[in-house]
Amino acid sequence: MKRSIKQTMEKTKLAILLSKVKHVKSEKLACVLAIQTEALAALHDFMHRRRFTQLMPVVVAPMTDPLCHGVHDIEIDCDSQKLKLTKSMILHKFMALMSDHLSHVYIMSPCVRLEPKACKDSGRHLLEFTQLDMETKDLQKEGFMSLIEELVGYVVARVKKKCDCALRLLERELIVPKRPFKVFKSADLKARYGKDYEKIMSEKLKEPFWITGFKREFYDREDADYDLVWPEGFGEAMSGGQRHYKYGDLVRIMRDRGYDEKQFGAYLELARRGLLKPTCGGGIGIERMVRFLTGLPHIRDVGPFTKVPGEDIVL
Amino acid sequence: MKRSIKQTMEKTKLAILLSKVKHVKSEKLACVLAIQTEALAALHDFMHRRRFTQLMPVVVAPMTDPLCHGVHDIEIDCDSQKLKLTKSMILHKFMALMSDHLSHVYIMSPCVRLEPKACKDSGRHLLEFTQLDMETKDLQKEGFMSLIEELVGYVVARVKKKCDCALRLLERELIVPKRPFKVFKSADLKARYGKDYEKIMSEKLKEPFWITGFKREFYDREDADYDLVWPEGFGEAMSGGQRHYKYGDLVRIMRDRGYDEKQFGAYLELARRGLLKPTCGGGIGIERMVRFLTGLPHIRDVGPFTKVPGEDIVL
Repeated sequence: MKRSIKQTMEKTKLAILLSKVKHVKSEKLACVLAIQTEALAALHDFMHRRRFTQLMPVVVAPMTDPLCHGVHDIEIDCDSQKLKLTKSMILHKFMALMSDHLSHVYIMSPCVRLEPKACKDSGRHLLEFTQLDMETKDLQKEGFMSLIEELVGYVVARVKKKCDCALRLLERELIVPKRPFKVFKSADLKARYGKDYEKIMSEKLKEPFWITGFKREFYDREDADYDLVWPEGFGEAMSGGQRHYKYGDLVRIMRDRGYDEKQFGAYLELARRGLLKPTCGGGIGIERMVRFLTGLPHIRDVGPFTKVPGEDIVL
Repeated sequence: MKRSIKQTMEKTKLAILLSKVKHVKSEKLACVLAIQTEALAALHDFMHRRRFTQLMPVVVAPMTDPLCHGVHDIEIDCDSQKLKLTKSMILHKFMALMSDHLSHVYIMSPCVRLEPKACKDSGRHLLEFTQLDMETKDLQKEGFMSLIEELVGYVVARVKKKCDCALRLLERELIVPKRPFKVFKSADLKARYGKDYEKIMSEKLKEPFWITGFKREFYDREDADYDLVWPEGFGEAMSGGQRHYKYGDLVRIMRDRGYDEKQFGAYLELARRGLLKPTCGGGIGIERMVRFLTGLPHIRDVGPFTKVPGEDIVL
């Protein structure tokens, strides 16, 4: 009986499986998960206190975030309807806010992104991760940035207070960041440090900071967008901005950038009818946040079943 | 410009889109989401107080829950590796508990299941839903059932107290259920009511109740499993049980039922090495819970982007 099963696993896969088991059973992972659990509880408490309405995830849908960095769509056949795995459910949170009865929404939203193998050693890319995805009609850029600064401060302070033992075992010293966070313009940083400016700045600084003014997706206003960046080399924490919602703006940008408008037909129809609203928001990657909180070099280690681009997946 | 966009949407699809918009913008949906938000906060608070470790979802993986009711696997190509959309991440929660440092885990886990069109009018099937998926090493059947009774009582009481206004608008009167809940044996009910016994009992009773003794998946112990059922016709609330974890038992049941063992090669290898632990747990469907709490006839109405088998999907 032993042999018949052994044959179903090749030697290489078996070695990977056993190293995964070692990771799953490690005290280190348990410490990471204790910190993650506290951080998630803190996030939910904060959002609940701020009266954000929680929506459920959308994992498959006729349309998804196009994402400008070239992650291809994954299509699924569902009774002759073509659905996609959502790379993020950003368009859905905008659509939820069509309602006059909802002011701000959030979702713990899983995002599947088949990133290129080249991301393997970035230390911060996963094929699947979860985003705390938030959107509000009541705040603009400055107000939203200030909300996020409070959120980050709250989470760090709470983890520091409640996870003392786990932090000590991981030899991680956390600093509750001072508000307001520093703000830099992407153009200025690029002029000074070249294209890797975000990475360089993240390695230089000791507290989270903002970079503003990116050219991103068709829905983001270049004059009112922002990235939150973790310090100590942990890189991007959150992307967000005020959004384009007017039909004319959306179509103009899509045409400028050569989008297939048909893919967003339903969304554009809503815009054309004036149903979309001016909103502002962002998405914080949970696994990257946990990596920052725990101080781990590679995001592979922040969970039992993380999947890194270019690596064999056994579980 | 108007015409060029109109052409991208067929008339039927446009009509569906506009009826969806009406739903998204309705006061009724806002009430449902207020109740959902409170219920989710209550669930997280409860799990956190009971010291469950929260894991992140696994949406794609080499293996998934086989499910005995014939929902087919959805495969994805990822750099020459075949992955599946998880119909549930039940095997992953068992594997997380290989760790001696973890006693109980939970996940807010999205499940994608391409259910047959015939489920369209059941009022309780969705192509995608979220499960509060729990597993523990510290409790057995009776202890876990009692934990769930507390959880349900806590959620109902909190929603009743905090969402008075939304409940009134939905004309929903909630009763905090008395503990312990009634327990029935599936064989007895089947003998008395025929194959639709769960539905009939759900319609008959006024408070949540248990049915035990099912023949289910290879991982469930028939002598120690249970379903929680919502009353007033709302049907199944949770499935769970004590689990098989010994290699011999798993292989015997798989062979009895004609499984493709290779699909579970890694899992069986862990069992063969004695790494899996005796655990007990279950999964509560969030959307079905919200349907019960809000008293809505059809699960389609519990969220802005619900997808019902056999219906056109526009958003």
